[in-house]
This record gives sequence, structure tokens and C-alpha cells, in this order.
Amino acid sequence: MIHPGSNFKTSSILNHKDLRKEDFEFISSIDTRWRDMDAIQHVNNATILSYYETVRVEFLGRLGFSLVRRQSNGVILASMQIDYFSQLSHPSKIYIGCRITRIGTKSFDLCSALFSELSEYPISAGKFVLVTFDYINQKTIPISKSIKDSYLPFID
Amino acid sequence: MIHPGSNFKTSSILNHKDLRKEDFEFISSIDTRWRDMDAIQHVNNATILSYYETVRVEFLGRLGFSLVRRQSNGVILASMQIDYFSQLSHPSKIYIGCRITRIGTKSFDLCSALFSELSEYPISAGKFVLVTFDYINQKTIPISKSIKDSYLPFID
Amino acid sequence: MIHPGSNFKTSSILNHKDLRKEDFEFISSIDTRWRDMDAIQHVNNATILSYYETVRVEFLGRLGFSLVRRQSNGVILASMQIDYFSQLSHPSKIYIGCRITRIGTKSFDLCSALFSELSEYPISAGKFVLVTFDYINQKTIPISKSIKDSYLPFID
Amino acid sequence: MIHPGSNFKTSSILNHKDLRKEDFEFISSIDTRWRDMDAIQHVNNATILSYYETVRVEFLGRLGFSLVRRQSNGVILASMQIDYFSQLSHPSKIYIGCRITRIGTKSFDLCSALFSELSEYPISAGKFVLVTFDYINQKTIPISKSIKDSYLPFID
Repeated sequence: MIHPGSNFKTSSILNHKDLRKEDFEFISSIDTRWRDMDAIQHVNNATILSYYETVRVEFLGRLGFSLVRRQSNGVILASMQIDYFSQLSHPSKIYIGCRITRIGTKSFDLCSALFSELSEYPISAGKFVLVTFDYINQKTIPISKSIKDSYLPFID
Repeated sequence: MIHPGSNFKTSSILNHKDLRKEDFEFISSIDTRWRDMDAIQHVNNATILSYYETVRVEFLGRLGFSLVRRQSNGVILASMQIDYFSQLSHPSKIYIGCRITRIGTKSFDLCSALFSELSEYPISAGKFVLVTFDYINQKTIPISKSIKDSYLPFID
Repeated sequence: MIHPGSNFKTSSILNHKDLRKEDFEFISSIDTRWRDMDAIQHVNNATILSYYETVRVEFLGRLGFSLVRRQSNGVILASMQIDYFSQLSHPSKIYIGCRITRIGTKSFDLCSALFSELSEYPISAGKFVLVTFDYINQKTIPISKSIKDSYLPFID
Repeated sequence: MIHPGSNFKTSSILNHKDLRKEDFEFISSIDTRWRDMDAIQHVNNATILSYYETVRVEFLGRLGFSLVRRQSNGVILASMQIDYFSQLSHPSKIYIGCRITRIGTKSFDLCSALFSELSEYPISAGKFVLVTFDYINQKTIPISKSIKDSYLPFID
């Protein structure tokens, strides 16, 4: 299944640079803060991960996950692959999309991209491999029905 | 001169808890981020200072100050006194006001308070003593006309 | 009682700038990180509060307080007064001292100062007003015997 | 060429989990801070990137790169792939190694891994694709001799 709004060709390799806002059903905005800049005077690369995180927590919250307290229905980050295409400076309003592009038995991939208002191209994009995790018992758990229902791969 | 919207009595001591949104002509909003919370699961006290900073930079930017690069027309923080009245959690939208309440020859006081949408009382409030500073030559400089023009003390 | 190592005169006003390393029985070190610098290329003022916090948590941990989880024996920050005397840049090793200088029934003052290796004068110093707090029941609690036993005021 | 201390087999795929401290000639330590923990009460994934960054800046500084000011001899992060193998909590002392494992004309790969004192296995490991970058003129530049001289791939 191809997401109707997707501009992706049916190809086996996802090129993060080709992602567009319309590839995401879920998108949320963040305003930069002055302290997000580092000594190079652009937004720091680790800070951009906190942007992704805030929107990811919001997205996963709608799917029934809690990342505010140590709960049994959480997720834990196993790995990520992040591309940075251009620099970002403060003040900016940015938009971050989230989309579940792979599901396994106890993990899933979340594709995420960060856009400014000024350009159609992403400033950054990434793939987050998340493991469904019970923080109370500190063990992995099967993915939820809500994750399965939100599965929206780029390629059939 | 008492700022018309002020709810302050003419008294010699400013009680931060009595500050209200209408005491500020300049007010700007910030959205919390998930990472703003610490291990106690409330917004961290140092993070709240980054909120103040972002709004302060915006306020001072309108008065002609630059805090993005090492410029000759900057300010440097000499001291601050911050009160925390209640806890804040994510997600929240907050409002921060700025007001210049004292001017000296090379320094001034910025009164700032942080409000939620839910209550008229401040969550936190503070006084920042700022020194006008030339970052290129690393020395203090006289306060600008824009600072003098924005002077709005609580007490006559 | 005057702490034997103190260089303070018996006076009613504590001048933070007069604090020295030997005024503190408890002192701990922190290494700066590259990201601690902001767009002005010095260590950010809010980051300095995270330095204070790390050492304060260590100090209070020795007095039986837990600030890692939501416990019944915690403290909450009510207010603080921080002075910044000079700029700090990365990389630096700094030393932070902690000392309880006032005790009340449900609160106490923690005096803290930050030193570099290069100078006897503090880079920053502050007074933190901490309220003993039960995070489980979200209410204030009487100060502990350990706080009383650690009370070490500057002035008799 | 296989680095003598490497425990890697000559294979075409680098498994981050197999990295050991002895795979790195350059290794540096970092102490966690209380604020590094997030609301889940473990060290936040984006904070771990700031650990990597601090050690990477130190490593690159020895190779003649400056990341403190906007200089002509900088690097910019193009992409990264990070694995998280176990959780980390405060207080911990950690060790991070850096190693240049690929060189191109205007970019190179930096392999980095994070270890605790308690275990031989990495807590996290990553590959950072860095582009040599002139921040004054905002353009890519050829990699330096120092980068070439430090090239130490895992596989011949």
C-alpha cells in the first residue's frame, strides 16, 4: 500500500531527502528556542533529536503509549539513522511528521522528517527503531493493535 | 509612574507572587517539550530559565540588542532572583512577560514572570540584572536610549 | 558559630563574591561539555544551574534525600538568587561547594559557589531556598535531622 | 589494515555491538549529570549524543579542527546511525572512543562507542558521517592531511 499523499516511487530504498510534508498524516509544529543554538550558532544536532522526541511522544500518546512516567506501555529507542540536509537557526517554526513504516513483533520503525515553512525539502529526516517496552518490569512486549492499525509503509 | 495595567500597590517591595499578565506590555508564549521534564517528572528549574531567556532575547531584540552572535551591542547576565510558586508539567503552553523595572548607567533590571493558561497566578517570576556589554571588546557599555525609553517601573 | 575555614567577617550580609573554596566542607568537581556553550560561545547561565543541581543532588544524597525518583523524602526549589561574576568557557574543570546556611521548619538555604582551578574567586555563587517535600503526597514535610546536623551558618 | 587492538573479524559489516574499548586508540571519559536523565529516569538518548559530541570535538581538536567558533576549518554532521544497547543512569562515569573508519574527498566516517566501567560491552555505538566544512564561507572543503593520517578502518 502506498500512502495516497506520498510522492515516493515504489522503490526498495527510502531516500530521506525525498520526503515531503504530504507524506505524513501526522504532523506537529515546534518553535525553536534561543538555547537550541550551540557555539557554531546553528541549532545543535542533538537538540533536533529533542524536537523529534517531543512530536514522537505526542504521536505515540495518541496510540495509547505513555512516556511521561514509568509505565508498562512504553517504547524504548533501539537505534536511529538521522540525516541532516541543511542548517537551522533560531528563531524558526518547524514542522515534524511521524509515520510508522515497518512493524515487527516487538518493534517498529518510525519515519520522521523535519520541515521549515520556507522550503518543501526536509531540513532533517530520520528512521527510529522503537521497541515496545514495559518500563515497570523492564522487558519487551508485543506491539499493540494501535501500532498495527497505524502501519503505513512507503512500499507495497 | 505606575504602569496603567498594573495591579501593584505603590509599595517599596515587589512581591513576585502578585504579578499578573496585565502587568506586562510585552508577553510571548512558549510550548513545553517532553525533554523539559527531569527525573522528577516536572519541568526542570534550569529549563524554566531557558524559557525566560528565549523571551528575553526576543524582547531585547526589539530594543536593538543582538544575542545571536558576538556583537558590540549585547547584554550579559550579572545576577538573578527567581521564585518558583508551582510545578509545571509537559505538555503546557506558557506565557512570559518582560518589563524593565530599573535603569542604571550600565545595567538595568528586567522583571519577568511565567504564566500558564489555567491560572491568573504566576508559576514563576524573577528579576534579572543585565549589564549592557560589548562582546567584541569584552567590556561594559552605557545603556541604550531604547532601554531608557522602555523603562516602566512598578513604583513611582 | 563561624565555620573554621571561613574567610567571612561576622557581618549580617553575605557577599557572594567573598566566598572561597575553603568556605565549603563539601565540594565536588564537574567537567564542562562542548554543548554547555551557547551562541555567545560561553557557558550558558541556565547550564550553570545544572552544574549546581548535580552537586546539590550529590550533597543532599549524602543527607538521605532522593532526587532520582518520586520519593517521599525529596526537596523542591522555592527560590534562588544567583550571581555571575565572570564568564566560563569549555573546556574547563570546575568545583562547586554546598553549605547549609539557614534552617527553618520546612525549608533551608543552601549556599553554593562555583570555582575554576585558575582563580581563588568564584565564577558564580548562589543561594537556593529549598523546601523539604514529599513528592508522593505532593506536600511539604519538616526538615530532617540530617539537615539540622549539617547546618553551618556563616554568621553566629 | 586491521587495527592491531581490534577484536573485529575481517567482515564487510560492522556490528556495533562487537565494539570494545581496545578498538579505540582515542578514548575519553565523561561524568553523567543529574539533568541528563529524563522523565523515564534514565539518561536521555539525545543527551547521549551530547556525550559523543564532547569527545568528538576533543578528538577533532587534536586533528586541528575548531568547533568553538565559526572557523574555516570545521566539520558539519551530515548523518549518523546510532545504536542503543542498554540503559544508562546517573551517576555514572562513561568512556567514549573515536576512530576514523572511512575517508572520502570531503567527508569521513567517525565510529564512536560508549562504555561504562562495569561491562566490556558498549552501552551505545554509532557512526557519524562528517563533512569538512568552512563555516566562514559556508562551503565544504577537502579533508585534511590529519584526517588521512588518522584513518584506521576496521577492514582491509
